[in-house]
Amino acid sequence: MDSISIFAPATVANVACGFDIFGFAVANPGDQIILNRRDEPGVSITDIIGDDGRLPRETARNTAGIAIQTYLQHIGRTDVGVDVVLHKQMPLGSGLGSSAASAVAGVYAINELMGRPLPVMSLLPFAMEGERLACGSAHADNVAPSLLGGFVVIRSYNPLDVIRIETPAVLFCTIVHPDIEVNTKDARFILKNEVSLKNTITQMGNVAGLIAGLMTPDYSLISRSLVDVIIEPVRAILIPEFNEAKQAALDNGALGCSISGSGPSMFALSRDAQTAERVGAAMQQAFLSVGVTSEAYVSEINRQGPRVVEL
Amino acid sequence: MDSISIFAPATVANVACGFDIFGFAVANPGDQIILNRRDEPGVSITDIIGDDGRLPRETARNTAGIAIQTYLQHIGRTDVGVDVVLHKQMPLGSGLGSSAASAVAGVYAINELMGRPLPVMSLLPFAMEGERLACGSAHADNVAPSLLGGFVVIRSYNPLDVIRIETPAVLFCTIVHPDIEVNTKDARFILKNEVSLKNTITQMGNVAGLIAGLMTPDYSLISRSLVDVIIEPVRAILIPEFNEAKQAALDNGALGCSISGSGPSMFALSRDAQTAERVGAAMQQAFLSVGVTSEAYVSEINRQGPRVVEL
Repeated sequence: MDSISIFAPATVANVACGFDIFGFAVANPGDQIILNRRDEPGVSITDIIGDDGRLPRETARNTAGIAIQTYLQHIGRTDVGVDVVLHKQMPLGSGLGSSAASAVAGVYAINELMGRPLPVMSLLPFAMEGERLACGSAHADNVAPSLLGGFVVIRSYNPLDVIRIETPAVLFCTIVHPDIEVNTKDARFILKNEVSLKNTITQMGNVAGLIAGLMTPDYSLISRSLVDVIIEPVRAILIPEFNEAKQAALDNGALGCSISGSGPSMFALSRDAQTAERVGAAMQQAFLSVGVTSEAYVSEINRQGPRVVEL
Repeated sequence: MDSISIFAPATVANVACGFDIFGFAVANPGDQIILNRRDEPGVSITDIIGDDGRLPRETARNTAGIAIQTYLQHIGRTDVGVDVVLHKQMPLGSGLGSSAASAVAGVYAINELMGRPLPVMSLLPFAMEGERLACGSAHADNVAPSLLGGFVVIRSYNPLDVIRIETPAVLFCTIVHPDIEVNTKDARFILKNEVSLKNTITQMGNVAGLIAGLMTPDYSLISRSLVDVIIEPVRAILIPEFNEAKQAALDNGALGCSISGSGPSMFALSRDAQTAERVGAAMQQAFLSVGVTSEAYVSEINRQGPRVVEL
């Protein structure tokens, strides 16, 4: 095989009560990467489409580039040369795991191109290297669901312990990305370092309820558990009309609604596509009421992770 | 029916990472209650066996008495009269939900005696009244698993949201009760009101892992998740040789080991009866090394809650 094209899904991290430990993948949007083998060794980013020139083209500074390079070093194939074309098909810095999707697409693609020497699960550390480059730390709550699909718990980082949770067969996600910027570092900075024991217990109860709700599955329990008493109340101030958009989602039948990653995108879960569409329209309307335009994405949960795209 | 005898199981609350939200019931020990209808109205505690005279005999001050009385008022049958005999078959103030087992046995028994007008789940508030009397607040993390059996999550108190979690078909519990006293109020008092965000996230990861591990079931995941970074490190100082007893449990094959309720009892979970027995002996030996005697109980998880005992 000399060429391959891979789609890797966008992801919702945090998922209301699950700050830093939960994430899930959506069927749409996501990133597409194309790798072409060439004669001389080295990884070269030959083109990036859809980023308005904002992403670095140098391999060592690009999340997909570094993931591919780290992988090739690991398997001892620095003799291999690939040209990389990245199609960004989702907004950057939106809280949808844009850097993670690129890194996952890259490492999944190179593993396929090399004849799949490593199982998918062991690709995670290479994708996390991309996250280290993009975010300053090797977070897994976007790369893990993008790579594995479905709903994923990061139980521990040291040692890394990633658990895939069974997801209801029918579950739809609405993502609304308001056209504003939230700096990830600001979103971290405003969090308090201390949490009351009372709120910790409430959050633990919701975490337990959400996992049980997903695995049973029990939509009502999922809905009751999609509550964040620690992070959302602090970060909501970074998103104009957050409360109104959330209320609009709930009023229109969403199981729950919260911030995707560190924002500004918001996500909502629904039992059917029609509800998810209605929820998206209502949330967009809430943003529009204060003059903020937005994009809405409605899709099923992605259950498979990355997939090959016909060239 | 004029007489009935009911056994209600002891319970392990908190369960490592699940402070205030998890609890499970064990097949042994537990409390037994006998109700006999009599002609004149009123609830009368006629005898308590096995408490060394430590429990109040007045109905309004006895956890079983108050649970039965509250129940009869609720169903509008204050015309009914019952004599109550309570057989305490477990240590008091040991962290095994002694007051909860008595209250659950009482309310389950009176509901059976009255021809079961209420479903089991709706008996919970009456048993919680017994807990309010015994502990000063209407905790549910002992009464709920004692009443429902198995492994239970208290997701929320307001409104009360109790979720029964599927438990592995094969799972054994070792309980070791060292012969020392820990005051429940002291055990609360030494806890800090604030938790670091970092520890909150670690605990949430373990809560998620424990629920997923139980429901899958995945013994290795259960084992990795039975970790408490918030409460156990603080309360361990109240139990002499805690670290040694815990290490002895793990060294002998326990999946995990922590404090039962607010102590001083400790619990360990194991995959088979033989391991659970060995774990108990090793833990008792650790206590004995500093001159502390103890009782050990080894049993399966109780899955059914209370049961009728032949008179």
